[in-house]
Amino acid sequence: MPSTVVVTVGDELLLGDTIDSNAARIGRALGDLGAPVVRRETVGDRAPAIQAAVARGLADADLVIVTGGLGPTPDDLTREAVAELLSRPLRSDPEVVEKLRARFCAFSTGTFPENNLRQAMVPEGARVLPNARGTAPGLAIEQGGRWVVLLQGVPRELDGMLAGPVRELVIEVFAGRLRPPVHRFVRTTGIAESLLSEKVEARLPTERGPVRLAYLPSLRGVDLRFTVDDAIDAQEAKDWLHRMEAALGDLADYRFEGEDLVAAVAGALEGSGRTLAAAESCTGGLLAKRLTDRAGSSAWFLGGVVTYADRAKVDQLGVDPGVLARVGAVSEEVARAMATGAARLFGAGAGVGITGIAGPGGGTPEKPVGTVWWAAAVGERVVAETRVFPGDREAVRERSAQAALHLLYRMLSGTPS
Amino acid sequence: MPSTVVVTVGDELLLGDTIDSNAARIGRALGDLGAPVVRRETVGDRAPAIQAAVARGLADADLVIVTGGLGPTPDDLTREAVAELLSRPLRSDPEVVEKLRARFCAFSTGTFPENNLRQAMVPEGARVLPNARGTAPGLAIEQGGRWVVLLQGVPRELDGMLAGPVRELVIEVFAGRLRPPVHRFVRTTGIAESLLSEKVEARLPTERGPVRLAYLPSLRGVDLRFTVDDAIDAQEAKDWLHRMEAALGDLADYRFEGEDLVAAVAGALEGSGRTLAAAESCTGGLLAKRLTDRAGSSAWFLGGVVTYADRAKVDQLGVDPGVLARVGAVSEEVARAMATGAARLFGAGAGVGITGIAGPGGGTPEKPVGTVWWAAAVGERVVAETRVFPGDREAVRERSAQAALHLLYRMLSGTPS
Repeated sequence: MPSTVVVTVGDELLLGDTIDSNAARIGRALGDLGAPVVRRETVGDRAPAIQAAVARGLADADLVIVTGGLGPTPDDLTREAVAELLSRPLRSDPEVVEKLRARFCAFSTGTFPENNLRQAMVPEGARVLPNARGTAPGLAIEQGGRWVVLLQGVPRELDGMLAGPVRELVIEVFAGRLRPPVHRFVRTTGIAESLLSEKVEARLPTERGPVRLAYLPSLRGVDLRFTVDDAIDAQEAKDWLHRMEAALGDLADYRFEGEDLVAAVAGALEGSGRTLAAAESCTGGLLAKRLTDRAGSSAWFLGGVVTYADRAKVDQLGVDPGVLARVGAVSEEVARAMATGAARLFGAGAGVGITGIAGPGGGTPEKPVGTVWWAAAVGERVVAETRVFPGDREAVRERSAQAALHLLYRMLSGTPS
Repeated sequence: MPSTVVVTVGDELLLGDTIDSNAARIGRALGDLGAPVVRRETVGDRAPAIQAAVARGLADADLVIVTGGLGPTPDDLTREAVAELLSRPLRSDPEVVEKLRARFCAFSTGTFPENNLRQAMVPEGARVLPNARGTAPGLAIEQGGRWVVLLQGVPRELDGMLAGPVRELVIEVFAGRLRPPVHRFVRTTGIAESLLSEKVEARLPTERGPVRLAYLPSLRGVDLRFTVDDAIDAQEAKDWLHRMEAALGDLADYRFEGEDLVAAVAGALEGSGRTLAAAESCTGGLLAKRLTDRAGSSAWFLGGVVTYADRAKVDQLGVDPGVLARVGAVSEEVARAMATGAARLFGAGAGVGITGIAGPGGGTPEKPVGTVWWAAAVGERVVAETRVFPGDREAVRERSAQAALHLLYRMLSGTPS
């Protein structure tokens, strides 16, 4: 199986000004192609450091991917450093110059800045990888059967290069050697990783053949990733993954379909022709934001209210002030009244309400920081749940929004709970 | 000046399952201490790869920081691999064992899992760095005047280690050699990086002495970071930075004080004793979420509405249906009515409204995707602004929320606009 080393270039990465998300993008893309990343290195904007890292990469791997330092400014040194290392003189490529000029004229008026022409310099014998999303093209250079690929560091442009020209190059030059893994994701929420792993390990067969299992936890839940790495028959891989998934049967309470719980809720709403409205206190708009992150959510999301103040809960959602005074804003009664109040206010078929103490202040011995009540109303049915969530303000808010979405999903999809 | 190499360990980093935010944390912390990171490397959970990376680090730098692979499970190999590389036999440390048992008993019932005892194994001659936020302590080993420090990979625990024991160790062992830089940040928003840089470069003196300037762009704006690296007198450094900042004077339209624009708005609201309410369409709760990310926002944020549907704009905010029909929801009139409507609905002294087309669908030739109107109402004064923002749905939403906060900030703080 071919292996990949990644070199990311930039002082801002070493200083910690920028988090190196490119490295993860490349790791996923190359792993899925079957040429996994075995090491990566980050160096600053200095030619000797770039050259040393690329040379180490070529000694260790079949493919070295370098990102960053291909732009037009003086601190962009990658192109020149790698050309020198591989003894490939740089020549201006007329076709690339033409494209740079055309792109500049389409977006700007004024004189074409000459420093842009550096981006048209191509090492001798290199392939030019077209960059549909930006100016600097990628460059691919063969060196004794191994490859060095230079790519732009702008994430949007990098994604386009990985999905297009880099993918095509890798498939072409490593033909017959690639072993793309087959993944199957099972998404869960509302269950701690340790408890989930107990349940999963107890239910899965001991004999798992070529299947590897990874737990991928986040504030929103734990994804299970089953992977078949080896070059087994596609049907056999499918059978193995199917067997694993079938064994998980009774995780139904925690599972949902699709990439993200909002996608699952959207599917359930679209399937049932219902619309949704939200009332939020401690999550302060996070739930509405997540729902509307999804393009097309206007088809089923009518709107939401953030009722931070008690008076707003009474005025807008019709929460009974007597109840508020008696049991407090963080209570089952208020969560229920918020869910039904939201549905009524927007004329929606379903409503969801969240009220809690996100912290850091506001906790009491009876209701410590992290105490949250949430409720969902679907037609006539109203269900409320509560938890004391661990973590800081952000963690409590993320977990609360996810828990409310999960309850709504179970009610809409008819999962027993 | 001492230099640092960072080694992060974990298959999940190479696979791209996890973004390596630890590397950025360490880069910032060591840079600020004056022992900057000159290179970093990421390797998988394999002893030879860990050993090769640490050996390369010791050849290049005074300090090698290794994170990840210190936990209790079988794929945690860092401790054993480094101990072997440096020929330091591992011995169980009774004090660490005692702490592990005490921590376990405080949080759990049941039998103490024996695999936890691996975390009490200490290489001969190593210092134990206490981890107040977790189980595995850090380990620091001197090798010929250079140091290898092993740290937990959990971000919360890592932060605690960097701010406490690692900081103390670095100050102690590199005493007299550290050159902590002095930073000064100037935050801007509402101006493109290229235009900002033109303005800044035209205004700053050509002679900048020891000062370096970095532009740190994000969807929310561009931060300018002025840094004095050299070991000049503290007062002289201060004078230089002051001279630079004074030269920026007429950037007032784009500047704000504090880490984040929400902090600046909060300060202006608290200063003027006003409260705030928000009405959002295309941002769908993002503005309310950002306001309520801030602990203590309940003191001045009364609430918000997400009026995705036109009917909700009419029913809840009192937007005139005739105006909606004539000029459409994405218009100056509707933005103004949303801002004043939000203030009225919640009884707040200030209101903000945002309406736009975040995409990917919904654009027309007259109002393409990215068209956004926002308005702020402070007392009797109402101001509206518009832009066609570039970028995808997320970018348009982030930029819209930031633009609305910026308008509100200027109105509250009396900046001419």
